[in-house]
Amino acid sequence: MIYTYLNNSFVEEDKAFLHVSDLSIQRGYGIFDFFRVMDSYPLFIEDYLERLYVSAKEMHLNIPYEPAQLKEIIFELIRRNNLPLSGIKVILTGGYSPDGYQLADKANLIMLQKAMSFPSAEFPSEGIKIITHEYLRDKPHVKTINYVVGIWIQNKVLEKKAADVLYHYKDEVSEFPRCNFFIVKHDNTVVTPGDNILEGVTRKHVLKLAAQKYKVQIGTVTLDDVLQAREAFLTSTSKRIVPITQTDDHIIGDGKPGRVTAELFQDLVRLENVERAKALTK
Amino acid sequence: MIYTYLNNSFVEEDKAFLHVSDLSIQRGYGIFDFFRVMDSYPLFIEDYLERLYVSAKEMHLNIPYEPAQLKEIIFELIRRNNLPLSGIKVILTGGYSPDGYQLADKANLIMLQKAMSFPSAEFPSEGIKIITHEYLRDKPHVKTINYVVGIWIQNKVLEKKAADVLYHYKDEVSEFPRCNFFIVKHDNTVVTPGDNILEGVTRKHVLKLAAQKYKVQIGTVTLDDVLQAREAFLTSTSKRIVPITQTDDHIIGDGKPGRVTAELFQDLVRLENVERAKALTK
Repeated sequence: MIYTYLNNSFVEEDKAFLHVSDLSIQRGYGIFDFFRVMDSYPLFIEDYLERLYVSAKEMHLNIPYEPAQLKEIIFELIRRNNLPLSGIKVILTGGYSPDGYQLADKANLIMLQKAMSFPSAEFPSEGIKIITHEYLRDKPHVKTINYVVGIWIQNKVLEKKAADVLYHYKDEVSEFPRCNFFIVKHDNTVVTPGDNILEGVTRKHVLKLAAQKYKVQIGTVTLDDVLQAREAFLTSTSKRIVPITQTDDHIIGDGKPGRVTAELFQDLVRLENVERAKALTK
Repeated sequence: MIYTYLNNSFVEEDKAFLHVSDLSIQRGYGIFDFFRVMDSYPLFIEDYLERLYVSAKEMHLNIPYEPAQLKEIIFELIRRNNLPLSGIKVILTGGYSPDGYQLADKANLIMLQKAMSFPSAEFPSEGIKIITHEYLRDKPHVKTINYVVGIWIQNKVLEKKAADVLYHYKDEVSEFPRCNFFIVKHDNTVVTPGDNILEGVTRKHVLKLAAQKYKVQIGTVTLDDVLQAREAFLTSTSKRIVPITQTDDHIIGDGKPGRVTAELFQDLVRLENVERAKALTK
């Protein structure tokens, strides 16, 4: 049996319900975070929890536990569910609103765990195609549950036989609905947008790894920069690093996954192994 | 006992729950509409239902009933609940998503009725203060459930002792989180923004009423136009017409509710009475 943690207790997954007065249902109001569980260990958990508390604070939501308590509940969820390879999503909503608009005194907290397969630790031999779409996210630096545009545009992504959609606004690219974006210039400089993005945990680690070997820039990336790039890739919690070889009708570089991307991929897999080893020796 | 309609049946209000896999909880994905019930009659119901179906279609959601069937369910809800003065909210969510991102095959439909008091049919003797905030809504022309910014900013609205917040972007004003905005120029021209707004049903009726007596413009309204206006007001389903006499630190006109605003208010109340009389004679 799989358990979901709801507010203050473990309930069977198929019995986890919220009343329709919840502010997520009424007004799409909530925040969340998501992390990978490998070998029953929540990878980079400290990073994700830190971001969760920042998102909650920014959106005037109160997490009813201290980080250490919340972490303990997460470990208990992992013990109970025994899903060694999985993802855990923590959602915090605006709670049961008295009038369908006002924030409730108490947020609703949900923790869901789901078995998941993650991409192999082999670097992919093919890149993906992406499309672009003009859109400026609300509060991009906060991990709110608002994915209205991301989900709405899925039809178009599939229709164009693309794997994802890169947002830009007034010519500056920002991010994907659920992933960060990087390019590699011809001089090997690794560049990622700095504004209008959610600062991904995988992005953070990739930036650190890149800085050990390459010049790194965090700043403006225009649509033209993307066309001129030698390599491009995305980073995400569930996908690690995915090489991008086509954007709309334009082939990036030589149309093959790039050398720098491959190197960062190997470095990230290595970092994950170090992190898991640390956990095992605890 | 108050009933809520959930998907295909009437349930007791406090037993209306959605599973946490619903896409409104997972990703803030859904649409809704809201209308007034007076003397047990849903005022301007045809307008609201028309907009609901347009919103659903735009967001790739399927309402499992024809408009005539849905209307029948609404009348049945009104009969059962016996709340002659109330509001009904219809919400349609992305449904129970298999992976927390994909739209479900079936949307979840919720209809909630709540007793409500509406403002009196007397024109208010005082106007309200509003503040302004730079923000461009996602898909403003669709009534999605996304009110992340509107709710987030409520603290600031209260702190500034204001009644509401008017969005603008790059100097052009658009609307309030839940209301439309109008100004009256010194030559009596009634002006309302035409872009980046949700086309309110009350806005539509007020535009028609205004056109019978005044010059009407639907188009760009800048922040400076607001400062120069002789009168300003908002329109909404639950508030009818509310005169605005202060925006941020600026007093509008002579600081009193305006003559044109008062006239439109009376005309709207009269239109409501005609609509209710029509319903009673059916």
